[in-house]
Amino acid sequence: MQRRSDEWRAGLTESLGRALADGDIERAGIELGRLHPSELADLLESFPPEERAGLWALVDSHTKGDVLTEAHGAVRRQLIEQTGVDELAAAVQRLDLDALSDIYDELPAGVVEAVLSVMDAQRRERFNLVRTYPADTAGGLMDVDALAVRPDVTLRMALSYLSRYRAEHGRLPAHSDALMVTDLAGVYIGRLAVTDLVSLDLDTRVHEVMDRDTDPIAADTPASRVARRFEDEDLVSAAVVDAGGRLIGRITVDDVVDLIREQAERTVMAGAGLDETDDTFAPAVASAGRRAIWLGVNLISAFTGAWVISLFSDSIDRLVALAVLMPVVASMGGVAGTQSLALVIRGIALEHVRPGNRSRLLTRELSVGLINGLIWALAVVLIVGLWFGRPGLGLVFAAALVLNLVWGVASGTLIPLALARLRIDPVLAGGVILVSLTDAFGFFVFLGLATLMLL
Amino acid sequence: MQRRSDEWRAGLTESLGRALADGDIERAGIELGRLHPSELADLLESFPPEERAGLWALVDSHTKGDVLTEAHGAVRRQLIEQTGVDELAAAVQRLDLDALSDIYDELPAGVVEAVLSVMDAQRRERFNLVRTYPADTAGGLMDVDALAVRPDVTLRMALSYLSRYRAEHGRLPAHSDALMVTDLAGVYIGRLAVTDLVSLDLDTRVHEVMDRDTDPIAADTPASRVARRFEDEDLVSAAVVDAGGRLIGRITVDDVVDLIREQAERTVMAGAGLDETDDTFAPAVASAGRRAIWLGVNLISAFTGAWVISLFSDSIDRLVALAVLMPVVASMGGVAGTQSLALVIRGIALEHVRPGNRSRLLTRELSVGLINGLIWALAVVLIVGLWFGRPGLGLVFAAALVLNLVWGVASGTLIPLALARLRIDPVLAGGVILVSLTDAFGFFVFLGLATLMLL
Repeated sequence: MQRRSDEWRAGLTESLGRALADGDIERAGIELGRLHPSELADLLESFPPEERAGLWALVDSHTKGDVLTEAHGAVRRQLIEQTGVDELAAAVQRLDLDALSDIYDELPAGVVEAVLSVMDAQRRERFNLVRTYPADTAGGLMDVDALAVRPDVTLRMALSYLSRYRAEHGRLPAHSDALMVTDLAGVYIGRLAVTDLVSLDLDTRVHEVMDRDTDPIAADTPASRVARRFEDEDLVSAAVVDAGGRLIGRITVDDVVDLIREQAERTVMAGAGLDETDDTFAPAVASAGRRAIWLGVNLISAFTGAWVISLFSDSIDRLVALAVLMPVVASMGGVAGTQSLALVIRGIALEHVRPGNRSRLLTRELSVGLINGLIWALAVVLIVGLWFGRPGLGLVFAAALVLNLVWGVASGTLIPLALARLRIDPVLAGGVILVSLTDAFGFFVFLGLATLMLL
Repeated sequence: MQRRSDEWRAGLTESLGRALADGDIERAGIELGRLHPSELADLLESFPPEERAGLWALVDSHTKGDVLTEAHGAVRRQLIEQTGVDELAAAVQRLDLDALSDIYDELPAGVVEAVLSVMDAQRRERFNLVRTYPADTAGGLMDVDALAVRPDVTLRMALSYLSRYRAEHGRLPAHSDALMVTDLAGVYIGRLAVTDLVSLDLDTRVHEVMDRDTDPIAADTPASRVARRFEDEDLVSAAVVDAGGRLIGRITVDDVVDLIREQAERTVMAGAGLDETDDTFAPAVASAGRRAIWLGVNLISAFTGAWVISLFSDSIDRLVALAVLMPVVASMGGVAGTQSLALVIRGIALEHVRPGNRSRLLTRELSVGLINGLIWALAVVLIVGLWFGRPGLGLVFAAALVLNLVWGVASGTLIPLALARLRIDPVLAGGVILVSLTDAFGFFVFLGLATLMLL
């Protein structure tokens, strides 16, 4: 098998493109067969919709289910639309229940019926259990294939259980780094590392060596907290329990990796009012529609600033240098605020910022704003004095700069704290609210001070 | 053991704060002992530097090494400074070699000597191997504790190797989901899942069941590519090989999780010119210094915009409405550009954007800019017409808006592509370059058109 180097991927993409252009379907299909489902999903996402549809038709039916779970929202919807009901039902039937649950709502009704009708009773029951939890909780992330043993059996007995499981199912569940240990009532009491099974005396009893220190995850735990647990404790899998402490499933690190990556993408995209599930190569009209709304929000914000300026039309009429300099005041407040915003958003995400240290954080940010305001005020007094030959204008400009920087860091600190309390994503809404405030205040304080002092 | 719920953490932080205020050192020490190293690092980061130093003194010496590797840059430097040389040497000696290599450069010379002098020859040799690779490559991420077996041994022999290893070292290396299979020359040829050891007939030979499909990772592979491999192939561990294909180490998913999280944090912070290793609770002066530079960069950008405006002072003097409206044109171009920027940055990170589809992406973005420009141009023609009662001004404003939106999306698409080619992080530099361009162009095109058409 070839190495999956970047060159190899680039070469594959090109040779695929050529094969498609030549109409050499067979060669294209063979190339595709050499990819992992997630690589396939990546590849499909890097083609525009029409060519994507052509490639999708070449993907092996039994791989299609996995590719669907790996694809981003908009691309996934397209692929689902372009798959026949029978093929789709066959493809998704093979999926793990957590993966099936993730895409379940997007499947056409016929497919849903077909899939449910061939599930055995136990699997259907488990599937319905997963479906009762929201997708962004531990319950929604879990799979229900946890291997469990009792504490009083020997390691030898645990091993023979695994051999039987494998003989029956063909394989052990992926990422089985541990067996869960439960009591007779199914309550989670610990976990047994598979590495213990391969390195300890087989007459040892499970309870003698099991790990009792790794707490299970309650099914209603938010996904972001689940991710933190995996990061903090270097987990490969973790037990999920219901309110009664009973083992109901298991979360594995591969799903957590995907989760963290999605959060990272959301951060990049949300700052610009975009959705992390957007198709990079969506057609222009679809892409424009979503973004138009965000531009509209910004238009309202920008016109608020314009209205503030209009209050001082007479002043600008008398001293046009005010119009030249006012965007500088506004922009500097915005940048200082953005820095506080980023710091506080990260602090909230890492759980470093909490009720007990908020006021200290605000005080520090205000000091930073004041210090940097004073530093750059000195610089601009000189620049403006030299440029316009009016020391008075330089002083007013410098004072407005200091005030808007302090206003900016205060807003940048308080906005995410307030949004987080209101359970609004600060990454999405924080930037646009901040810039509205620093623009409006910047224009107001500069033009207002100038009107009072200079005119 | 208690559940690590959010309430528990909040309670712990509070009771710690109280214990410290009361001077009840013993109670504080006991509370701290119940945390994982990474939880301890998080906790330490959520206190300001003075209190952090007090808490650090209470942390168990043998936990300190792990906490240091989990802490962010600035906090880590503080903690290292506040640890005696002997204690520090003892603490870091216990670390995995990849973790030691990560913090090695920050350790005082005395500690380095002490640590190296007590390493056995084999460990020192391996450590020097890790150190030859940059930290952001597979070689820098790897640990050198890979367990390896030959292809012709039976599973039973592999098991007894593991038992001996455990008896000798006390434990198996963390995240050992697989043994690496190497030939006599040490060249990687495949991997044997530990779950095979616990579920297959023990007389089976390794080569009969080993996984030959998971490619090893070349030591010079960039960290971001390593992360993609783990995501795409759902790996828990992967073999690292040198240029000759020889097994030299192993990367585990816990390090990859940390890596992805760091990339995500960098994204949040870099957009505001901050470093992801910044201390959330750094003193004001230290914090201000770093941010002042970014504000200075923005000041230059803002004054460039001001200079463009100053070219049209006479026009503004004659029609003050231009000063009122010009920030709207600039801001809308900036927002439209930011949207393209975010989409393209994500596309580059996901490797969806590549040489073959760049021109298509640019065409699509230009179309999106034009569509949204036209949509909002209609809206602003009405607003401006009603507000100022000058239809001509509305038309000029609308035309400038369309042009700056198109300019914005073109800049937002091309800037990250150019920066990526120059190997500059587009998240860091992209935003500030974009806004400089959309501000300057926005002012120029609006004031220029108005001067030509209206005055």
